[in-house]
Amino acid sequence: MSETERADDQLRDVRIERGFTSSSPGSVLFQAGRTTVLCTASVDNRVPDWMAGKGKGWVTAEYNMLPHSTSPRKRRERSKVDGRTTEIQRLIGRSLRAVVDLEALGERLITVDCDVLEADGGTRTASITGGFIALVDAIDSVRALLPDANVCPLHDSVAAVSVGLIGGAAKLDLDYELDWQADVDMNVVMTGRSRFVEIQGTGEEATFSEDELHVLLGLARTGIGRLAEHQRESLVDSWAMGLLGR
Amino acid sequence: MSETERADDQLRDVRIERGFTSSSPGSVLFQAGRTTVLCTASVDNRVPDWMAGKGKGWVTAEYNMLPHSTSPRKRRERSKVDGRTTEIQRLIGRSLRAVVDLEALGERLITVDCDVLEADGGTRTASITGGFIALVDAIDSVRALLPDANVCPLHDSVAAVSVGLIGGAAKLDLDYELDWQADVDMNVVMTGRSRFVEIQGTGEEATFSEDELHVLLGLARTGIGRLAEHQRESLVDSWAMGLLGR
Amino acid sequence: MSETERADDQLRDVRIERGFTSSSPGSVLFQAGRTTVLCTASVDNRVPDWMAGKGKGWVTAEYNMLPHSTSPRKRRERSKVDGRTTEIQRLIGRSLRAVVDLEALGERLITVDCDVLEADGGTRTASITGGFIALVDAIDSVRALLPDANVCPLHDSVAAVSVGLIGGAAKLDLDYELDWQADVDMNVVMTGRSRFVEIQGTGEEATFSEDELHVLLGLARTGIGRLAEHQRESLVDSWAMGLLGR
Amino acid sequence: MSETERADDQLRDVRIERGFTSSSPGSVLFQAGRTTVLCTASVDNRVPDWMAGKGKGWVTAEYNMLPHSTSPRKRRERSKVDGRTTEIQRLIGRSLRAVVDLEALGERLITVDCDVLEADGGTRTASITGGFIALVDAIDSVRALLPDANVCPLHDSVAAVSVGLIGGAAKLDLDYELDWQADVDMNVVMTGRSRFVEIQGTGEEATFSEDELHVLLGLARTGIGRLAEHQRESLVDSWAMGLLGR
Amino acid sequence: MSETERADDQLRDVRIERGFTSSSPGSVLFQAGRTTVLCTASVDNRVPDWMAGKGKGWVTAEYNMLPHSTSPRKRRERSKVDGRTTEIQRLIGRSLRAVVDLEALGERLITVDCDVLEADGGTRTASITGGFIALVDAIDSVRALLPDANVCPLHDSVAAVSVGLIGGAAKLDLDYELDWQADVDMNVVMTGRSRFVEIQGTGEEATFSEDELHVLLGLARTGIGRLAEHQRESLVDSWAMGLLGR
Amino acid sequence: MSETERADDQLRDVRIERGFTSSSPGSVLFQAGRTTVLCTASVDNRVPDWMAGKGKGWVTAEYNMLPHSTSPRKRRERSKVDGRTTEIQRLIGRSLRAVVDLEALGERLITVDCDVLEADGGTRTASITGGFIALVDAIDSVRALLPDANVCPLHDSVAAVSVGLIGGAAKLDLDYELDWQADVDMNVVMTGRSRFVEIQGTGEEATFSEDELHVLLGLARTGIGRLAEHQRESLVDSWAMGLLGR
Repeated sequence: MSETERADDQLRDVRIERGFTSSSPGSVLFQAGRTTVLCTASVDNRVPDWMAGKGKGWVTAEYNMLPHSTSPRKRRERSKVDGRTTEIQRLIGRSLRAVVDLEALGERLITVDCDVLEADGGTRTASITGGFIALVDAIDSVRALLPDANVCPLHDSVAAVSVGLIGGAAKLDLDYELDWQADVDMNVVMTGRSRFVEIQGTGEEATFSEDELHVLLGLARTGIGRLAEHQRESLVDSWAMGLLGR
Repeated sequence: MSETERADDQLRDVRIERGFTSSSPGSVLFQAGRTTVLCTASVDNRVPDWMAGKGKGWVTAEYNMLPHSTSPRKRRERSKVDGRTTEIQRLIGRSLRAVVDLEALGERLITVDCDVLEADGGTRTASITGGFIALVDAIDSVRALLPDANVCPLHDSVAAVSVGLIGGAAKLDLDYELDWQADVDMNVVMTGRSRFVEIQGTGEEATFSEDELHVLLGLARTGIGRLAEHQRESLVDSWAMGLLGR
Repeated sequence: MSETERADDQLRDVRIERGFTSSSPGSVLFQAGRTTVLCTASVDNRVPDWMAGKGKGWVTAEYNMLPHSTSPRKRRERSKVDGRTTEIQRLIGRSLRAVVDLEALGERLITVDCDVLEADGGTRTASITGGFIALVDAIDSVRALLPDANVCPLHDSVAAVSVGLIGGAAKLDLDYELDWQADVDMNVVMTGRSRFVEIQGTGEEATFSEDELHVLLGLARTGIGRLAEHQRESLVDSWAMGLLGR
Repeated sequence: MSETERADDQLRDVRIERGFTSSSPGSVLFQAGRTTVLCTASVDNRVPDWMAGKGKGWVTAEYNMLPHSTSPRKRRERSKVDGRTTEIQRLIGRSLRAVVDLEALGERLITVDCDVLEADGGTRTASITGGFIALVDAIDSVRALLPDANVCPLHDSVAAVSVGLIGGAAKLDLDYELDWQADVDMNVVMTGRSRFVEIQGTGEEATFSEDELHVLLGLARTGIGRLAEHQRESLVDSWAMGLLGR
Repeated sequence: MSETERADDQLRDVRIERGFTSSSPGSVLFQAGRTTVLCTASVDNRVPDWMAGKGKGWVTAEYNMLPHSTSPRKRRERSKVDGRTTEIQRLIGRSLRAVVDLEALGERLITVDCDVLEADGGTRTASITGGFIALVDAIDSVRALLPDANVCPLHDSVAAVSVGLIGGAAKLDLDYELDWQADVDMNVVMTGRSRFVEIQGTGEEATFSEDELHVLLGLARTGIGRLAEHQRESLVDSWAMGLLGR
Repeated sequence: MSETERADDQLRDVRIERGFTSSSPGSVLFQAGRTTVLCTASVDNRVPDWMAGKGKGWVTAEYNMLPHSTSPRKRRERSKVDGRTTEIQRLIGRSLRAVVDLEALGERLITVDCDVLEADGGTRTASITGGFIALVDAIDSVRALLPDANVCPLHDSVAAVSVGLIGGAAKLDLDYELDWQADVDMNVVMTGRSRFVEIQGTGEEATFSEDELHVLLGLARTGIGRLAEHQRESLVDSWAMGLLGR
């Protein structure tokens, strides 16, 4: 079935390759259709200065599009980072922190990098969904160093998807083409237990009603449920996910 | 009644002073409790290069906190603009554009500056609510230049408010103290006709259920209704608001 | 009497509003005609590293024009600060320090921010005259912390005004229109006891004689005497000004 | 045979995956041992302003290490690009241009991005060797637009390798561990027809004799011959390489 | 006579070497005691965009201290230019423009670079005095291109000197040691015909009376008269200075 | 004999003036034909943080072209440093370190500044050759502070020259005109004892054979031998050079 025949409530094909590189403990190539993000994560055994001495850890994220992830090529952000990038990496960081028990992590910093190798819409949601997997691998890598080996530093899993209104119809998981057509675009971040972490609904030169909001949120819930399954399958051997599942 | 006695569904006191300075056609001192924003707007009779030749106008916004708007003093953003600032000014711009008919504006650029003189929480929502008033004054100032004098460049009015969950209770219009206590913080932008423009709900190290979402959205709708009234009263002599009201 | 009828040796109307915002101990809205500057000041109980351990305090100033203080709108200085801005804020800082007893202040830093809300000429001199009032309020706020409660950290008051030569005639307190016409422009900073702190006389593509210099300085002395009175009246309840007056 | 058992004149294992992403015509994942570089290339049908009107094209390169390509993580170059990066990307650009007939390309710009996903020494030489393959794919993609369909825009192929002196012994293709031990480090860029394009030999706190230089150059020649074979095999279906081979 | 025995109204030794380098038409090594400035000037036959079409030229200046001009070494200004530097180069530019007939120059830009090779106080005044000589050589170099060969683009010559109050005594031409001791520091720029171009008198944590001002200005006039003689002698073969002298 | 009649294996005229300024212990005006570089050096009795505690010193270099060193004038690098500059100053630093015994220096930092006053080709090689002389003077200035007064911190002297291929002929010491014509350009850095420190051979849109490489290296060896003699003559009174010569 070609991309254009995808049903309104159907996700794009998901592929997950853990251990894509070996220079960081978490390294996941996450693909949703033609959107490809390399999510890598590592642990630094000290927190930033402003966090020190609180007995808590921190999770931060960076987001970056490679120049040839788009056509035409996008200029590198080498002298300043644009607003969209900072907004996205703040969202990824908040989303991941929402499911981490920062005390259980101890005073250490996990940095998750989301480098977009190919962009066909939904790069920020792919970064969250793939970034969670890299985060889990990074946590597993410091299992022996955690304050309490019986306390899982994860509360829940987290994944994200976009939904949108196109000519009045609600669609799940917008690729670039659909995103461009959408009047209203909403990114939803939810946990594996179906609680909201973040809702960012935006009408660019458009508005939406409360009824439309409900339809969009329902669609997002469906999509995130399936993504959470993909994450669980991929991480079946993870220590932290094992504790979570109990 | 002191600030601490404010009811959960009560807005802070609103004061609006139009024409605060005379160097720009729109100049509004907007206050919500101890949050004070100077919103100014002017019109440039040409659009940015990337917009030229499309027969449409554009509305853009800048947001800035004066160093002494907070205590302790905040450093000026003179060598780079931080992520929070860019995120907020993108939100203000999108929110204002959602109620403007860009074709009816002709090829001109309206710039709305939101300079926070005193910050006690809710500076981004105050910037939207006050910025709309400055925007209307700026539109009125070019009334004679518009492509069609009978087509109002406004679709609707727009205002914004924050809501939050504190210890399980939903509260309207968070000041700094309440914002700091909130588990979930949501900024809602709606039009005068009660359509959503933007929803940004965020749990920092927390999550929320669908029921909680509904309570928060209801509270936001109430608050925005009252803010829209304040706007209408303040702009009772406006040409563009007059056309909108018909 | 309209602006254009103002006599050559007459100041513009001065208005001073102390306590304009409540987030900093010094907060003064200073207006001279249509030039409006918000001067705010606060005290940090530690000095910059290069000053530490000398038993002295420091006073520093920042100057900034809001984008809509002028028409057309002026771009914000967000990636670099231009030469004019740095020159002005250095002048303000030196002028204020000239009347402060830095030892009597103890090791603390006072920062005075001068944000121009509306600019019609003379913004740097208004920043000094208004900034002095904010400085005094900031000093009063730490009265109980000073090394010696009987030693006033002020030597004198300080104010500033511009004078210029227009077609051979000397004029006091140039607004934008007069400044634009002036062949020679001079900013004079003097104390309440009529001693010079700073003289900056400049002929842009013009020169001036020693006689012309004397006329300009006399005019400046007259203007500054009146501004010093405005300052004293405004600060009639100030502890530090009270000590100064004895 | 493990990495540590590699012979002094033996290359690391090479893997080449063309078409790794689909958003640019050239997209090659090039691996030499544990060094992995994503080389992508695209064609812009206009040259930079300073080249315009000369009837010639241009080839430029950018080089970047992803933060997690190393352990510990390397900070992103987002506010400025360091000296090493600029030096490397200038080398890559010169090396690729040495085998391109810029007139035969017509007035178009080819940009080759070399993003290092994993770094284990030799990232600059891997970027040249892999970047050449991406360049050829980019040239093939504009075959129909070239000034003369019978004139190949390639003179030759180009590849690069490092050699070094470790404790007096010459070694081919230094990984990170060997590079760290080397007294003298030399990067050699040669064409498929064994002509030098660039020699950069450096003793960091060391020097070398003419005899040592000859041994190093001989070793480099051997290695580059093998890399050129890998390139030819990988590009067996290329139009431009086909013309070159005749 | 050693430096410390210099009389209060005596200049430091002046040495002027024209044609120090040959890559620009004006190139003067100007020395006052141990302060050495290389002043170079060239002419660009087009003005900046904002000046174009007015039939006038422009003169601009840049000022820079070489890192080893001071001891200890001063860091280069490579990422931003500090306030002192911008203030000084604006002063140099204004001072030189005050004696140039910009219409007589035609639409061309003269750039004067003042690079301080050794700094022992008075670098900004040495830059003006030396920069004038480089400016004259640059003007002479385009003599044949000027709008009217009989209209000299110079009104007058210009030179500058510092004066200061040290323990109540007025001193001419402050070196670093004297400058450091001075309570009041004044830079005076005057023409060869003894008209003021610029007065910048500053009390850093000090003030001064009108009588003290007069003494300082008298001393400056004496010093500048002697510097103007040095300039005339050095430029005895100049076409533009010849016209000026008539 | 004019410049154009210079033989293929002949250096440009060399002039060396030590002690050109007195604000740093090493200060050398080095000229090769019309290329003039001011090389200055000083010693800081502490190393950068990343070097501290290793019992070793460090040598670093900065390179800069004055704007009027070229015609037309070159813009100053005040907001960012371009790739060519960073590449050159890294080369100068490595070249000087190759002949310094960093342990014998103790924990101190020598900074060598190479400011190009006039540029006619070969500025980077002139910076190395002249910079070595300034370095020696700087070392001599801290002779009494060195860890062991009998251990010379110099292994050898170092100098550099360019060679090139022009229409098939090899030329020594390229000036700007020759450099522009050259197909292959090679910078060679060698010690006084004829060992290589650095070879940077580059064909810009050209390649070269092994035979051509040998001819170029032989020519460089000849030139560097003569430059080493100039250095020895200039430094005949140096303590460190005296130890080296034994």
